[in-house]
Formats: sequence, structure tokens, C-alpha cells
Amino acid sequence: MLTGWNVAILGGDARQIEMIRKLSEWDATLHLVGFDQLDYGFTGANHIDMDDDEVEKFDVVILPVAGTDESGNIDSIFSNQNMVLDEKWVERTKEGCIFLTGIANGYLTKLLETSDRLLIPLLSRDDVAIYNSVPTVEGAIMMVIQNTDFTIHSSRVHVLGLGRVGMSVARAFQGLGAKVFVGVRKPAHYARVQEMGLEPFYLNRLDEVAENTDIMINTIPAPIINASVIRKMPSHTFILDLASKPGGTDFRYAEKRGIKALIAPSLPGIVAPKTAGRILANTVLQILKDQQRKEGKTK
Amino acid sequence: MLTGWNVAILGGDARQIEMIRKLSEWDATLHLVGFDQLDYGFTGANHIDMDDDEVEKFDVVILPVAGTDESGNIDSIFSNQNMVLDEKWVERTKEGCIFLTGIANGYLTKLLETSDRLLIPLLSRDDVAIYNSVPTVEGAIMMVIQNTDFTIHSSRVHVLGLGRVGMSVARAFQGLGAKVFVGVRKPAHYARVQEMGLEPFYLNRLDEVAENTDIMINTIPAPIINASVIRKMPSHTFILDLASKPGGTDFRYAEKRGIKALIAPSLPGIVAPKTAGRILANTVLQILKDQQRKEGKTK
Amino acid sequence: MLTGWNVAILGGDARQIEMIRKLSEWDATLHLVGFDQLDYGFTGANHIDMDDDEVEKFDVVILPVAGTDESGNIDSIFSNQNMVLDEKWVERTKEGCIFLTGIANGYLTKLLETSDRLLIPLLSRDDVAIYNSVPTVEGAIMMVIQNTDFTIHSSRVHVLGLGRVGMSVARAFQGLGAKVFVGVRKPAHYARVQEMGLEPFYLNRLDEVAENTDIMINTIPAPIINASVIRKMPSHTFILDLASKPGGTDFRYAEKRGIKALIAPSLPGIVAPKTAGRILANTVLQILKDQQRKEGKTK
Amino acid sequence: MLTGWNVAILGGDARQIEMIRKLSEWDATLHLVGFDQLDYGFTGANHIDMDDDEVEKFDVVILPVAGTDESGNIDSIFSNQNMVLDEKWVERTKEGCIFLTGIANGYLTKLLETSDRLLIPLLSRDDVAIYNSVPTVEGAIMMVIQNTDFTIHSSRVHVLGLGRVGMSVARAFQGLGAKVFVGVRKPAHYARVQEMGLEPFYLNRLDEVAENTDIMINTIPAPIINASVIRKMPSHTFILDLASKPGGTDFRYAEKRGIKALIAPSLPGIVAPKTAGRILANTVLQILKDQQRKEGKTK
Ligand SMILES: NC(=O)c1ccc[n+]([C@@H]2O[C@H](COP(=O)([O-])OP(=O)(O)OC[C@H]3O[C@@H](n4cnc5c(N)ncnc54)[C@H](OP(=O)(O)O)[C@@H]3O)[C@@H](O)[C@H]2O)c1
Ligand SMILES: NC(=O)c1ccc[n+]([C@@H]2O[C@H](COP(=O)([O-])OP(=O)(O)OC[C@H]3O[C@@H](n4cnc5c(N)ncnc54)[C@H](OP(=O)(O)O)[C@@H]3O)[C@@H](O)[C@H]2O)c1
Ligand SMILES: NC(=O)c1ccc[n+]([C@@H]2O[C@H](COP(=O)([O-])OP(=O)(O)OC[C@H]3O[C@@H](n4cnc5c(N)ncnc54)[C@H](OP(=O)(O)O)[C@@H]3O)[C@@H](O)[C@H]2O)c1
Ligand SMILES: NC(=O)c1ccc[n+]([C@@H]2O[C@H](COP(=O)([O-])OP(=O)(O)OC[C@H]3O[C@@H](n4cnc5c(N)ncnc54)[C@H](OP(=O)(O)O)[C@@H]3O)[C@@H](O)[C@H]2O)c1
Repeated sequence: MLTGWNVAILGGDARQIEMIRKLSEWDATLHLVGFDQLDYGFTGANHIDMDDDEVEKFDVVILPVAGTDESGNIDSIFSNQNMVLDEKWVERTKEGCIFLTGIANGYLTKLLETSDRLLIPLLSRDDVAIYNSVPTVEGAIMMVIQNTDFTIHSSRVHVLGLGRVGMSVARAFQGLGAKVFVGVRKPAHYARVQEMGLEPFYLNRLDEVAENTDIMINTIPAPIINASVIRKMPSHTFILDLASKPGGTDFRYAEKRGIKALIAPSLPGIVAPKTAGRILANTVLQILKDQQRKEGKTK
Repeated sequence: MLTGWNVAILGGDARQIEMIRKLSEWDATLHLVGFDQLDYGFTGANHIDMDDDEVEKFDVVILPVAGTDESGNIDSIFSNQNMVLDEKWVERTKEGCIFLTGIANGYLTKLLETSDRLLIPLLSRDDVAIYNSVPTVEGAIMMVIQNTDFTIHSSRVHVLGLGRVGMSVARAFQGLGAKVFVGVRKPAHYARVQEMGLEPFYLNRLDEVAENTDIMINTIPAPIINASVIRKMPSHTFILDLASKPGGTDFRYAEKRGIKALIAPSLPGIVAPKTAGRILANTVLQILKDQQRKEGKTK
Repeated sequence: MLTGWNVAILGGDARQIEMIRKLSEWDATLHLVGFDQLDYGFTGANHIDMDDDEVEKFDVVILPVAGTDESGNIDSIFSNQNMVLDEKWVERTKEGCIFLTGIANGYLTKLLETSDRLLIPLLSRDDVAIYNSVPTVEGAIMMVIQNTDFTIHSSRVHVLGLGRVGMSVARAFQGLGAKVFVGVRKPAHYARVQEMGLEPFYLNRLDEVAENTDIMINTIPAPIINASVIRKMPSHTFILDLASKPGGTDFRYAEKRGIKALIAPSLPGIVAPKTAGRILANTVLQILKDQQRKEGKTK
Repeated sequence: MLTGWNVAILGGDARQIEMIRKLSEWDATLHLVGFDQLDYGFTGANHIDMDDDEVEKFDVVILPVAGTDESGNIDSIFSNQNMVLDEKWVERTKEGCIFLTGIANGYLTKLLETSDRLLIPLLSRDDVAIYNSVPTVEGAIMMVIQNTDFTIHSSRVHVLGLGRVGMSVARAFQGLGAKVFVGVRKPAHYARVQEMGLEPFYLNRLDEVAENTDIMINTIPAPIINASVIRKMPSHTFILDLASKPGGTDFRYAEKRGIKALIAPSLPGIVAPKTAGRILANTVLQILKDQQRKEGKTK
């Protein structure tokens, strides 16, 4: 339970709805900034503006998954308000106030350092990355079905990378009856792929294996599906790039060769905002409980 | 190989493209009727009209998956021609000419009987129904992802029926990490569901189990998801009805209660026309080879 | 609940223990014949002899899984008593008394017909055969591990038959990471194997595929692994025959060629008597409840 | 290929057979020490004694999986010879000679350091540990089937640890239809277990979950299944401890409580020596190829 915690939520998207629901269930005192156009009310949640006096009570500030832009602007799909996170504002919050964001950028990192507040980027946690891999995988499946005229079942699917996302992608496509190949660079990953009942290959052979692929799904944030790989692919191949922008695909060359290739960022928030919101809410809860334990007191 | 067989393809949709490709690969002599707007040519395929003299050579006539309408009209997405299958036309084909369709209706059945030609409805074959269940499942997955804001993974998915489609649906959702429950009426199905590692329940308890569902997928062609079942569902439930029209859901009542419910017919042709076409082509090949063997001769 | 039912259990093995436990849990009035050497007592269970007066109260008689031999002798591993089921004894039971056995033979069938008592062979029910396939599969796995010096994982395992046992065998070996091939004769089975993500083949090609097998598991009660199949196998192949005696393997030829081949009957009772007993108990319960419903009364 | 490499194999067990077979296939020049009672000959393999002059040519020395004892004695199941690895012997080998063992001990480590020879303990490699987890799992399955009277299917199986062995154990028991729970201490492991479709729990709740277990399998080399955990278990629970000796179970207390508990070391060599030998051979090959590449030359 989060009884006694003053938690502010500053802007965001559909994922915030589930966070609000959960935090409110756990009895946090909620302050919503930038939710003026939200249709349904949450009993007990307090709608305020950036310059409200309540700011001084904040124990926790939850930013959107994307954090701020490099000028400190905060986006909300539920408001037209202008919200800016700057030094003055941050310092109005209670001392020891914790700032939670999905991802951090230079601006945020510097700002919170200056103001001596803790900044926790949720998406860089291992557990969050794994939980998020699940809605990412479902987004990937949807996109593959939409963009091919053959079934995933019985297709040859090449997954690049056996990281937190790659392992989940590989397992899900196996569950759908695809012939899954996983490209890795570490012997231990090679072994794990085999144990999973899939076909491992070393990435230095990628252009060779590309000759026999129907679907290639990239999770490696490095330029890996380059021209010499694309050149070898059958013309019906579909490339789906999940790696963070700019992805790992030479999209220009793919287009030239007539190979369909798409980059698909931020799938969790798109295909399953409720699940994605719940993942974040659970993580916030765990972080605050750990914090509470450390401080040896309940609020 | 189908060397020497004169095969006519009368209208259809994207699935016919793959059939043409395959039959041509197997060396059949192909006659295409209603493909005048087809973009890419198939070497060796013969474009003709319904009244062409070649009709007299036809050993096999392949109708669209939907067959004809009740007046004998044949649809083609590749042509604006008017094509009608009537007694006169049928009797111009070679004696012993075989007619293949996806599904048969009263008109077709009567017509072919009168003309003493064999009519084979491909989709009513057990094997074809099972092969087709695979693209059907992938269509179902796509629709579920598109129509929910939570992941399939960890959701409670209730599949109704353990027939040819139901078993495939159940397995695929299991492969994606859902908690799958399967509603059946036969003890042997109950046992099989359990052996598969899923949760069986008897359909006479459907309204009870409906209280704990996130996604309900129906494969039973009978009015099974009725008002008293829908009444019990959580409001976020998504109902996907795969059974042939009119489905097994009380859609009017679902709408009234604000439960999202969709019927999704003909998924294979929509989400994976190439696979669906290949399934039909392989079946045609097998039927003609059996025919050949029975007649004790090659064409 | 079975309150009011007089149920007699006549001999048997470890499976009977679990049946006694369950039936007693369901409040049946239990009469045990041939359990004099049973170590632990069951409160409320009544130990009697074949000639006890109680026989006249019996509503249900449960025979061992193997039934009787062709002279009516009943086996019990918990007794040295001589127990014989004959016409006189059967007719002492209450009119309408139901006899349950695992399997029936000529003697039993005739005897019960003469005495106008219902005989229900439990193992011939579809659901029981499927439930029993699960311990059968685990017995098969144990035997394969014991009899090979390589792992099931990554091995090529050929399963013959996609019946009630075959489907379970195929799925379990797939779950352990084997490359599973399933031999069938029906196109619908061929399609199902493929949908399951396994490799189907037609049994008329068995000698051909035998060249590439590591483990062959037979579930077909017909002479299918004959000399011409065995001749093609690699010398390290292990044949496990699950079909009822005499199995489907030419054991003599296998031995001659030095190929290890074993027949493994009655695995459920051997590897998982508790589970096997529970399966039977559940089925007995269901049968008696159906009976009760039909008769429109509770005992 | 290993053409030109002089490889000596010193003692060992059934796993060495497969290594010899493989290395000889790859054209290494093989010297066998301690295989005098080996039944079948390997063409081209050279049987010698410890004091043979050939020792000076050795590029590679392969010790048994267990290495030596703390006095340098080498075991062989194929010989009664006394074989001792000492400084004098080691220094007779070619300069730069590589020593491969399964596991290292103090004696070996010190000896090879003194003699300035590279010692590579194969089993401590991540990839080898994962490959070996597969036969380990199959051994565990065999032992569970042998030591319970119920099926793995539908049982509640608690796996402790999600390391290299734990993940494989969890997946295999899932594949057999068990309800698998995995005990972990890291949030990322918790998330991965959930993504795999299994039930995670934190190990600090182990005594609580122990109330609902049928089978508990330990992979954690720490005293984790202690008295307070065992106290809570149902009496039919079977504990299988896979962790290296002395395991993580309080065996004394388990026995006192009548809970069956077994420790099962070295399963790969016992249940699948051929696979285990092949894993080692493949790793040796990879190490020697890497070595070759580094030295920039072929032998
Ligand atoms: N599209 C979406 O909706 C979505 C959602 C979640 C995540 N993502 C993105 O997906 C990507 C993967 O995320 P993750 O959590 O799986 O990361 P991760 O756990 O770090 O995995 C990355 C994988 O890439 C491999 N890799 C990295 N650099 C490589 C290189 N130069 N050559 C070969 N392999 C290389 C790593 O292999 P080693 O272990 O050998 O280093 C690892 O297997 C990230 O870019 C992330 O932002 C996208
Ligand atoms: N949407 C699509 O794209 C698509 C694609 C393919 C098929 N379909 C449709 O999906 C449906 C199922 O096809 P299928 O091939 O799976 O058929 P199927 O093999 O005949 O299976 C039908 C299932 O429904 C059960 N059932 C039938 N009537 C019932 C009743 N009154 N009460 C309870 N259970 C009942 C059957 O159980 P028993 O075994 O106990 O009779 C069986 O399990 C059909 O309507 C078919 O046209 C749709
Ligand atoms: N060892 C044990 O502990 C144990 C336990 C349980 C059962 N069993 C035995 O295992 C066997 C299989 O049992 P089940 O319940 O799976 O039976 P089932 O459901 O009848 O399956 C038998 C399979 O064999 C196929 N088949 C039968 N005759 C054939 C033939 N001449 N050629 C090709 N295929 C043929 C059937 O194919 P079609 O569908 O095409 O006819 C079917 O797939 C039985 O003998 C049973 O007694 C043994
Ligand atoms: N019986 C056999 O035939 C056989 C075969 C192979 C291996 N083994 C043995 O099996 C054991 C596991 O091998 P492995 O390769 O899986 O090792 P591993 O990859 O290191 O995994 C060990 C696991 O134990 C956990 N762990 C370690 N200490 C812990 C503690 N104090 N409390 C809670 N968790 C703890 C680790 O969790 P963290 O990640 O949180 O540290 C990790 O998940 C070893 O003892 C190995 O020798 C036996």
C-alpha cells in the first residue's frame, strides 16, 4: 500500500490511465497535472496545474514514458496545457522527491542532478525490459500478420539477438509454429537457442542465412541488416525492425530492392497500453516499497 | 505432375494466384476465365472467355472458394465480366469433368447432379479444414491484438469448441502465454484439453466461467454465447466469433451491454491468401492424383 | 457424492489404493475383497470375503484393471485368497448391479450377459484412453532415457500413429526438444501433425524414413515395424513398442540385426499407479452419477 | 578440421568414447593413454603409456571430466593402469601444450601454473553449462518418474533457481504438462519466468509455497531447502537436488520427516554419455580452432 505518499503524474498517454487506476487502488494521494481532457474521473484524484501549491508536498513525480524533450517540455495526450520541467519547478518539490520516467535524456539527467533529486529511468531496468518485451512481441506478431500474405506458421523466421526482447520474440514465434532461427554472437546464446529447441546461427553468417528467410525480425541496436544481407533475401521477405531508432536496417537499400521493411518503435504503448501501464505501475510500487524499507518507516 | 490435364480456373480472389502458380509449376494446361485485370502474366496460362471453344477440353473446373451465388453467378476480383455457371455451360465440358469449389450451395449441388459431373467442396474435407485452421488462427490473433488494450499473454482466453478450428486456436493462444480454457461437451474432448495442458470446462457451465474471462473465442456454429452468458462477462471482455455466419453470439445483446463482439468470417483468404491458395492447390493436386490412380492411367 | 452406494472392490493392484481413497472420500459404502494384506487401513472400509452376506447389497462391483482370466480368476497383489467370479456369485449381487473392469474378455462378457448385469470396460472409453495416455507417455520417456546413451533433445523421434496415445506421445517428445516425426495414414492426421508443428509422413514411406531415425515409438496395434523397416534403421536406433501385445514390431528380426527393441505394456499402472487409480476413480464417479441421473433418484 | 594436432586423451569414462570418435573424424592425431581395456578399436588411434616418447609431441592433453584427484591421479574406467599427472610429465609435453579438463581443483591449477601450461576447465564455460543442462534435465525427469507414483503432468513442480540449469529444468517440466513454479531472487528472473508462461515466486517465500508442492527440484548450490521449508511440505513431496555436492537440501531432516529426497550428481555422464561426450568434443574443437586463429596459422 502507498498510503501517505503524495504522487504526481505529469502528462503522458493511455498507459497513465492504468497507472492512475493502480496507484489509486494502492491508496496513494494522487495529483494529476495535464489530464484536464480525461473523460472519466478518478475518485480522489486531484487535478491541478503546474504552479499549484501542492507541488511542495510531492514525494514522487511520474513523468511520461518518453520523459521530456531536450527543452524540458512534457507531453500529454489529455491536455493542451504547456508543461515545462525546469530547475525552479523541480526544487519546489519536497526534498528527497523521486522522479520516475520511462527513459532519460541529457536534459533530464542534468536537471535532476543539479537539483539533487533521484531520477529513475524505468525502462532501463532489466525486469521492466523483460515485462515490456511481451507487448512488444504481440505488436510484432500483429505487424507480421498484417504485412505478409502467408502464415507465420511454417515460415522461416530469423530473429536477430537473444537479449531481453529477442528471447521473447523467438519463443512467441516458436509457439505459433514458425521455424525459428536466432542470430547471436556469444557461444552461451548459441547454446541457449539450441536448448530452447530453435536453430542458432552466428551473426557473421547472416548474409548466408538471409537466403532462406521469410521474415527477419531485428532486436539489435546496430546496423546489422545491411545491403549485403538484404541483397541475398528472397523478394517476399518481410523485415521488421524492433531496435530503437534508427533501427538496424538499411531501409533505403531495402526499398530500392523492393523488400518490405518497417521499423516499429514503442509497440507496448500502442498495442497494449493497459498492460504497459500496469507494468510501470507495478514497478513504481516496488521501487517505492524498497524506498520505504530503506528509510525504515512508512509514510 | 499434372501433365496433360486441362484445368480451368473461373474467377476468384488472391488465393487463385497461388493456385495458378502451383498448378502451372505442376505442368497442368491452364485456362483462366475472369482474370483479364490480373497484373502479372503467367507464362503458358491461357486467358479465355466463358464461351470459348476450349471449354470442351476441360478435365477440371476450379470455382472460387465461395462457389457461385444461388443464381450461378461467379465472382472475380480480377474482372468485371459477367460469368454464370449454368447447365448449358457445364455440359459443354468434357464428360467426367470434375468441379472443385470451396463450399457448395443448393444451386451448385443441383446443377452438377443434373449434369452428371462430380462436385467436390474442398473446405468440407477434414484435412483442408485443419490446414485452413492455421491462417484462421492467425487472423484471430491479429484481431484480438487490434481490439484489446491488454496482452494476450497472461489473459484468460476461453475457446469454445475443440473441433478442427478450436484445437488450433487453443494451442496457438497457449503458445502466446495465455491462460487457455476450452469449453467442450464430450468427455473425450475434456480429457484431450487436459492432456494438452489447458483447462477444460463443460459448456453447460459457460455462463459461470464467463465471469472470469478476458477474451472469448467461439468456434461452435450454434447460438452459444447468449444473453445469459454475456450478462456475466466483465465489461472489458472481447468476444471474437469465428463460427460461420451468423456466428454463435447474441451480438445485439453484447452491444447493448457495451461488450465488444466481432464476427470474423473468411480469415484465411484475408490474412494469408498465399498460404490459403497453396492449401487448395495441394488438395487439388492430391485429388487429381487419386483420380488418376483410380482411372489407372495418366492423362 | 456417492452416499448410499454399496461399492465392492475385488482385488487389483496399487491403482486400487487410490480408488479406495477417492471412493471413500466421496462417501461410498466400501466393501473390500482380497485386500487382507493391505498395510494401512481405510477407516470405514469393510474387509470381507467372497462368500460374505454383504454381497447381496452390492450396487457396484469393481474388478481389477485386467478383469478376470478366462476362467474367472481374480488377481490381487494384496491377498493370497482364491477369488473366482462365476454365475452364482454374480447373481447374488443386487439386481441392476453394475460391473466395472479395465478390459473385458470373452469369459467376462458372456458371464455378465447371462446374469443380466451391465459390464463396463473402462479402458475402452475414449476419455479414459486419453487420460491414460499421459502416464503411458511418461513411462515411455523413462524407458527411452534408460535405454539410450544420447538425449531425447535433438534426437529424431518417429512416432507411429496419431490416435489417443500417439498424439500425447508426439506432443511430450516435442516438449522435450526432440525432432518429432509422426507416421499416419489419414490426410486429416497428416494435417493435424503439421498444425502441431511436427513433421508428418505417410506410413507407406516408413521404411524410407527409418533411415533417419534415432528413436521409433509405436502406438499402432498392427505389424508395422517389420523386417524391411528395421533393415533400414541406423544401428543405434531404439524401438519402443507401446501397442498392446504382441506389439507391432518384428522383435526377432530386430534382435538379429542388433537393434534394441522393447515392448512396454501397462505403463500407467507401473510408473504412476496413483494417477492411474485416480483416473479410474474419477471415471467410476462420473458413470455412477450418470446412472443416478438416469434413474432419476439418489441412492 | 584438426589435421596436424597431436591430441592425447588420458583416461576417463564413456564420454571419452564419443570424444575419440569425433576428434578422429576431424583428423586429429590421437594418442590414447589408459584405454587398454577398450573393446572396440579406433582406426588410427595410437595406444600408448604415460612414459611413451610421443608425449613430447602433444599439443593438447584431454583429462577426464573430473580432472585429477588432489594427488594428481587420473581415473579411467578402461584401464587398471596407474596414471599420475605430475610436474615432470607436464613439462615433457610440447611447449604451449593446452590441458583440458571438465573441472579443475587446487592441485591441477597449481601444477599447470608452475609448468606454464594453459589449463581450461570446460564445465565452467557458460555454453558448456547450458549444453550440459539438457542431459541433466533428462536425468532429472527419469529420476522423478522413477521416484513418484503420480505423473509429472498436472503436478505442481517447484524449480529453485533460474540459472543455466534451472531455466532448462523449468522449460522441460512445462513441456511435460506440469504446473511449474520457479523460485528466484532477482526481479529480472521473476519477469523472465512470467514471460515463459510459468509462475515465479521469490525465494524468501519458499517455506510458504512449499505447502503446495508435489515435486521440488533444486539447482541452487546453497542450503535452501532447510528444515523450515521441509516442515511445510505435503508428505508425498519428492525432492530432487541437482546442485553440486553437498546439495542445498537438509537431507537428514527430510529423512526424519519421511520426505523422499535424493541428490543426483553427474547426470549427463550417466544418462547420456554419448551426448555429453559430443558436447565436450565440440567445445574442444571450438577452442582449438580459436587457438589456431589466434596463432594465425594452421598446424
Ligand atoms: N519496438 C519496440 O516497441 C521496442 C520495445 C522494447 C525494446 N525495444 C528496443 O529493442 C532493442 C533490444 O532491446 P533489449 O531489451 O532486448 O536489449 P538487450 O537485452 O540489450 O539485447 C540486445 C541484443 O543485441 C545484441 N547486440 C547488441 N549489439 C550488438 C552488435 N553490435 N552485434 C551483435 N549483437 C549485438 C546483444 O548481444 P550480446 O548479448 O552479445 O551483447 C543482445 O542479444 C533495443 O534497441 C530497445 O530499445 C523496442
Ligand atoms: N472465421 C473463419 O475464417 C473460419 C475459418 C474456418 C472455419 N470457420 C468456421 O468455424 C466453425 C468451426 O469449424 P470446424 O472446422 O472447427 O468445425 P468442427 O470440426 O465441426 O468443430 C465444431 C465444434 O463445435 C462443437 N459443436 C457443434 N455444435 C455444438 C453444439 N450445439 N453445442 C456444443 N458444441 C457444439 C463440436 O463439438 P462436438 O465434437 O461435441 O460435436 C466441435 O467441437 C465453423 O462454423 C466453420 O465454418 C470459420
Ligand atoms: N503400453 C501401454 O502402457 C499402453 C497404454 C495405453 C494404450 N496402449 C496401447 O496402445 C495402442 C494405441 O492405443 P490408442 O488408444 O492410441 O488407440 P487408437 O486411438 O485406436 O489409435 C491407434 C492408431 O493406430 C492407427 N492404426 C491402427 N491400425 C492401423 C494400421 N493397420 N495401419 C496404420 N495405422 C493403424 C490408427 O490410425 P487410424 O486413425 O488411421 O485408424 C490410430 O492412429 C493400443 O494397442 C493400446 O492397447 C498401451
Ligand atoms: N546434477 C547434475 O548432474 C548437474 C549438472 C549440471 C550442473 N549441476 C549443478 O547445478 C547447480 C546449478 O548450475 P548452473 O549451471 O545452473 O549454475 P548457475 O547458472 O550459476 O545458476 C545458479 C542459480 O542459483 C542461484 N543462486 C545461487 N546462490 C543463491 C543463493 N544463495 N540464494 C538464492 N539463489 C542463489 C542463482 O541466482 P542468481 O542469478 O540470483 O545469483 C542462479 O539462478 C550447480 O551446483 C552445478 O554444479 C549439476
